[in-house]
Amino acid sequence: MSPHASDDVSVESISPYGTARATVKDTPLSKEEAKKIDDYFKASLYLCLGMLYLKQNPLLQEPLKVEHLKSRLLGHWGSDAGQIFTYIHFNRLIKKYDLDSIFISGPGHGAPAVLSQAYLEGTYSEVYPDKSEDVEGMRRFFKQFSFPGGIGSHATPETPGSLHEGGELGYSISHAFGTVYDNPDLIALTMVGDGESETGPLATSWHSTKFLNPITDGAVLPVLHLNGYKINNPTVLARISHKEIESLFIGYGWTPYFVEGSDPETMHQAMAATLEKCVTDIRAYQKQARESGKAFRPHWPMIVLRSPKGWTGPRKVDDHYLEGFWRAHQIPLPDVATNAAHLKLLENWMRSYEPEKFFDESGKLIPELKELAPQGNRRMSANPVANGGLLKKPLHMPDFRNYAIEVHRGGTTEAPSMSNMAIFIRDIIAANQTNFRLFGPDETESNKLGGVYQAGKKVWMGEYFEEDGDGGNLDFTGRVMEMLSEHTCEGWLEGYTLSGRHGLLNSYEPFIHIIDSMVNQHCKWIEKSQEVEWRAKVASLNILLTATVWRQDHNGFTHQDPGFLDVVANKSPEVVRIYLPPDGNCLLSCMDHCLRSSNYVNVIVADKQNHLQYLDMEAAVEHCTKGVGIWDWASNDQGCDPDLVMASCGDVPTMESLAATALLRENLPGLKIRFVNVVDLFKLVPESEHAHGLSDREYSAIFTNDKPIIFNFHSYPWLIHRLTYKRPGQHNLHVRGYKEKGNIDTPLELAIRNQTDRFSLAIDAIDRMPSLGNTGAATREKLLNAQIRCKNEAYENGIDPKMLQEWVWPF
Amino acid sequence: MSPHASDDVSVESISPYGTARATVKDTPLSKEEAKKIDDYFKASLYLCLGMLYLKQNPLLQEPLKVEHLKSRLLGHWGSDAGQIFTYIHFNRLIKKYDLDSIFISGPGHGAPAVLSQAYLEGTYSEVYPDKSEDVEGMRRFFKQFSFPGGIGSHATPETPGSLHEGGELGYSISHAFGTVYDNPDLIALTMVGDGESETGPLATSWHSTKFLNPITDGAVLPVLHLNGYKINNPTVLARISHKEIESLFIGYGWTPYFVEGSDPETMHQAMAATLEKCVTDIRAYQKQARESGKAFRPHWPMIVLRSPKGWTGPRKVDDHYLEGFWRAHQIPLPDVATNAAHLKLLENWMRSYEPEKFFDESGKLIPELKELAPQGNRRMSANPVANGGLLKKPLHMPDFRNYAIEVHRGGTTEAPSMSNMAIFIRDIIAANQTNFRLFGPDETESNKLGGVYQAGKKVWMGEYFEEDGDGGNLDFTGRVMEMLSEHTCEGWLEGYTLSGRHGLLNSYEPFIHIIDSMVNQHCKWIEKSQEVEWRAKVASLNILLTATVWRQDHNGFTHQDPGFLDVVANKSPEVVRIYLPPDGNCLLSCMDHCLRSSNYVNVIVADKQNHLQYLDMEAAVEHCTKGVGIWDWASNDQGCDPDLVMASCGDVPTMESLAATALLRENLPGLKIRFVNVVDLFKLVPESEHAHGLSDREYSAIFTNDKPIIFNFHSYPWLIHRLTYKRPGQHNLHVRGYKEKGNIDTPLELAIRNQTDRFSLAIDAIDRMPSLGNTGAATREKLLNAQIRCKNEAYENGIDPKMLQEWVWPF
Repeated sequence: MSPHASDDVSVESISPYGTARATVKDTPLSKEEAKKIDDYFKASLYLCLGMLYLKQNPLLQEPLKVEHLKSRLLGHWGSDAGQIFTYIHFNRLIKKYDLDSIFISGPGHGAPAVLSQAYLEGTYSEVYPDKSEDVEGMRRFFKQFSFPGGIGSHATPETPGSLHEGGELGYSISHAFGTVYDNPDLIALTMVGDGESETGPLATSWHSTKFLNPITDGAVLPVLHLNGYKINNPTVLARISHKEIESLFIGYGWTPYFVEGSDPETMHQAMAATLEKCVTDIRAYQKQARESGKAFRPHWPMIVLRSPKGWTGPRKVDDHYLEGFWRAHQIPLPDVATNAAHLKLLENWMRSYEPEKFFDESGKLIPELKELAPQGNRRMSANPVANGGLLKKPLHMPDFRNYAIEVHRGGTTEAPSMSNMAIFIRDIIAANQTNFRLFGPDETESNKLGGVYQAGKKVWMGEYFEEDGDGGNLDFTGRVMEMLSEHTCEGWLEGYTLSGRHGLLNSYEPFIHIIDSMVNQHCKWIEKSQEVEWRAKVASLNILLTATVWRQDHNGFTHQDPGFLDVVANKSPEVVRIYLPPDGNCLLSCMDHCLRSSNYVNVIVADKQNHLQYLDMEAAVEHCTKGVGIWDWASNDQGCDPDLVMASCGDVPTMESLAATALLRENLPGLKIRFVNVVDLFKLVPESEHAHGLSDREYSAIFTNDKPIIFNFHSYPWLIHRLTYKRPGQHNLHVRGYKEKGNIDTPLELAIRNQTDRFSLAIDAIDRMPSLGNTGAATREKLLNAQIRCKNEAYENGIDPKMLQEWVWPF
Repeated sequence: MSPHASDDVSVESISPYGTARATVKDTPLSKEEAKKIDDYFKASLYLCLGMLYLKQNPLLQEPLKVEHLKSRLLGHWGSDAGQIFTYIHFNRLIKKYDLDSIFISGPGHGAPAVLSQAYLEGTYSEVYPDKSEDVEGMRRFFKQFSFPGGIGSHATPETPGSLHEGGELGYSISHAFGTVYDNPDLIALTMVGDGESETGPLATSWHSTKFLNPITDGAVLPVLHLNGYKINNPTVLARISHKEIESLFIGYGWTPYFVEGSDPETMHQAMAATLEKCVTDIRAYQKQARESGKAFRPHWPMIVLRSPKGWTGPRKVDDHYLEGFWRAHQIPLPDVATNAAHLKLLENWMRSYEPEKFFDESGKLIPELKELAPQGNRRMSANPVANGGLLKKPLHMPDFRNYAIEVHRGGTTEAPSMSNMAIFIRDIIAANQTNFRLFGPDETESNKLGGVYQAGKKVWMGEYFEEDGDGGNLDFTGRVMEMLSEHTCEGWLEGYTLSGRHGLLNSYEPFIHIIDSMVNQHCKWIEKSQEVEWRAKVASLNILLTATVWRQDHNGFTHQDPGFLDVVANKSPEVVRIYLPPDGNCLLSCMDHCLRSSNYVNVIVADKQNHLQYLDMEAAVEHCTKGVGIWDWASNDQGCDPDLVMASCGDVPTMESLAATALLRENLPGLKIRFVNVVDLFKLVPESEHAHGLSDREYSAIFTNDKPIIFNFHSYPWLIHRLTYKRPGQHNLHVRGYKEKGNIDTPLELAIRNQTDRFSLAIDAIDRMPSLGNTGAATREKLLNAQIRCKNEAYENGIDPKMLQEWVWPF
């Protein structure tokens, strides 16, 4: 069917049809075993079609009629057979070798596959007693699928055994690796869709083996499912030559084993033999490394499973291809309600799976098949790793107060907030050597967190060169995970926390947008998990953003974007928390709080450079606990109403706001100024909208109802308006922030471009107080001139004037 | 230096040092040629160091002193040598074969490499006459680099010959492919960083060859630079075995040629021979395909260049590795201002490049070297492809009015807005067969745009199966580009438009967040380009979002996220435009407008399902031209002040707002309601903030200053507050939108959960008009009951009640 014949086209070699072609040539199953597995396979496939179609008559105990069908047919058939096939063959090995395993379902909308298994294994009925193992339970189980008020067509949080939803594609392999790090006995059997494989995040995540230690970590066993089609297109990997696909995975560092075909009998033998080969290889590599104490990077086994999309369905319907084509992607026969012939076809098809043989009259799976599945927590649908909160142990946390930066008087001493905090993290790493990891896309050192290497180096299973000894900080065993892929780092961290451990991702602020969508999806996972009774809380996903916009003056415009906060703020208030500590002690306090929390996505924004310090530890703890507060030491409105509120959120903005306050007080000594700092961004929204929100009364007590507020914000200014639009006095709120004005600048110039510098803020304040009259106007003029002078000096020398760099709070 | 010895570690085989090891064994350069190329190499490297260090004494005509140095040393040395090496060897082939080529610089912060070439080729001085080819020009050229008010350390828009900035990593290959599609003579020589290669987007973009036709498209020649290190870590690809890296690229479908080593003499021969082999292979494949008329997918050549990071610099400084280690990443000797020995070392190092031999006393490159570069537009720094606006031809556009949906009375007929629009796109494709492409991640058919295949199928260079003839719509030549990678599709489109063509990306709304960061970076590129005088305007980047949140009820929570608009709205108002057409004719009008525009990022949000139609074509054009307006036919406040303004933005929200309006008018006939619809989102902001913004007077004339406004919005409601917080009457504005409440629902139920349904909106209105008294309360009760009834019916049957599905505007 090629549009132009060519020698390069060789259809036969890669067709998914026929008897099995496999790398491993063994036939380990007895006839009886093979038959039982095939029966279990059929029972599973029956359940899949049941979920797609039925709300009544679940066991087809009467002839199929339109009224048994759901009114709106939803769900996906395409990858179900291949996934089930893999799952049930692995069950045999779990039992044979007593494996500790989970199943990660990568292909899109493959939930029927895993749901069928959870139901057959009894787990489903255990966690949802109304979906019992009988006819009525099965009916409910079918009806709820892709039904309003029911469950989705992904492996959502409601799915026992799942920690990977797969709604958005691309993260199965990185999630899988996250689960096996520091889980030496675990094998994550990971089904990877060939559609999913085209995504960038998936394509690079195969390299995760360079960061996996066979002594201390478990193993990922990927099964790349060459299902052939996506929604409406063939997949790239299913349409390249055998040599190419084989080379690709050798290149990625794996040993690919092929299982290809459609004939169930031979395919069962091939899959059984191949999976067993993989499991024994994995165990052999682990044994070699563990017994010798010498870690190395094996060429881990993986499987390429080529089977037809919609396998076991009708190949053609009304002269159109169904099985083995993209038409099998979703509901395979969509018009059964209106086409009697198709309804009959569906009935015959469903009956061909022989439900009456495999389920007894009461609707229960027959014991001969039931015994094929493992027992208890060995069932992949019941493995507590996939409900990681059950396994989660609290971190051993040193007292963060011990890392305090000494601050005698606010705003007069500089210190490196970030590298100081690194020592706290270092000691957390030291105290939690198998329970905590730090992740980052090659920026940990640049982000001034290099101190952590004293307690845990960077895991590196690639080759070593002589210069690595010169400060390379690489090791086979380490606690820091660095690959230049935000996607992979985030995926690892998600997998690591979802399976019951703790972690922190550090990233340049501008490039965290790369994983906007991943973080969105994780927020959604956590939110839904909170509604699932049997799910235990997992550790929060902690993201530390540094190399922030205001100190990316020298890296240029591409490195200037503080908008991740807008993305996060759109997610459910049940889940998201945002902190912008103004100094080093507040940073410690926030980090401590985040690492102790669970079921949140915490974002901390803090610059990595030296900064003025404001609060001693006691004051910092109090301030962070409140989340927002008046800084008395920087205010002069004690005992009276202020004329003006200067407010700030973020470390650099706080310094500029303080400097503006000082300029105003120096030049207009009669002015009563209140200084407010916000650490916890969600304090700004009403209490009805976020658990952290202030009541209007609390808000007004801090910000006033009627005084001008000059608010200097770290991110885009509109976010503050968005959070406060319901507040009394919001019309007095004048917000400055990053306005997408930048290039190669000095820090001051970047601030001036965006009007967040001390001079602009002081001028803003004067402009909002016309009652200052001529005195105000004269001060305004003076400030404007000072601003211009500073700017000129910066342009001339390429650095900001000393007077600004060395500015301290003068009162 | 491996922490644990192991048989698997084989350092020697992959060390970057020594005489060249190369796949191609030829030595094509005469001694004299090789010497000249080496001299040109040295002159280039000298310029790089000059950019990093000097603001005075550019040619070292006097001894180097601290005062010649910039005060703040910024910039990157690491990948400069390897990039220059590649660039200048390609110059030889451009001249020899009269090639039409551009250079894409993928590695991070590699601007000195390309800037040095633009300067040596004279292009730089042509576009920036003050950076003339003399000592003073060179001094200015050096000083401006990474200097406030100057240029950045990426290949920013200010860089002649660049269309790929590389600030954020991962897009070099997809950009390169975008430039060569429909450019049959072009070769995009693309330097790929080994750090960049770890990113997901880059890792999958290698598969782009499956979408490139050797007859109608040009070629990408990638040079993977195994530079060895990122900021602070080795790179994965530089630390795997030769067999692995070779297999990886064979697997990706390429023919990898290796050039490895550090000895300049042998490396020059190896690179010259290898590049020539690649160019002749490319030409041979093209010839074969073009002369036979038979397209096929060659295993295109690519080069793996392994050279030390910071190549040609000192290997060790003070017992620490520099060349060939990550210390060479940025400024190689950072303390020259304070360490006299290092200053001397720098001077000696710079003088080792013999600037006095290669530049004459006036500062001009000597003619013997000058002649190595190509002339005119053959210079890669001057190729108009990289200033695509110069080559851009307007699209041949059929009159969109010819595709009008007939609408006799607003809100009474349904039509498929999207599939109707597909016919318009089909005819644009037909009329612009080498100038327009449609891009999408396997969603074009699902998005009801399949009609376009009549004019251009999906490009597919993978293998073909028999079922492809059954509606596969695949062809070697096509106009639709589909790969399941939003990153790759977006990268292709960016490259395609930046090189002077037109295109449209279609995507599910929820997954467009995957490319938040890419779109951000493109916005920044366009914004800066507008400040660069010599850059001509390129076609806008057009993004069509469909499968929108309100009709993802059945796909579940992961598929529900309309927040991309927040990301876009943060970018410069000079660049971004957002349209939410309420119906099919408005969609046509918006699409026509966007495709004719230039230098914008246009986002259109429209659902793909059947929808009520409101405006005939004439009214639609008028409405879209205004961008916001009162719908008289849906209002009853003619000739008087309204009691209430019902406003909407987005197609589904508009239907619900209209239905709410009808409910109110039916139940409270005395009420005067004005109905407002917003198409152009930025109409809501003040005119001072966006070119499309309404004046306050215009805004008030539509929305009133004092009446309650119930605004139903497509996306997160806070965006409307953010856009309108300065508006008079904003405290009367009550906005509903998606509040992150979802799961498997019916459309109505999803709306109810987020309070955007007709009942909730009508109740909102009543709650804001206490003067309605008991009549209001009774209506409220009635509406609430109706809402509950509808909801129950939906839960029971899994579909929304007919009365809602078939609702039409009753007046």
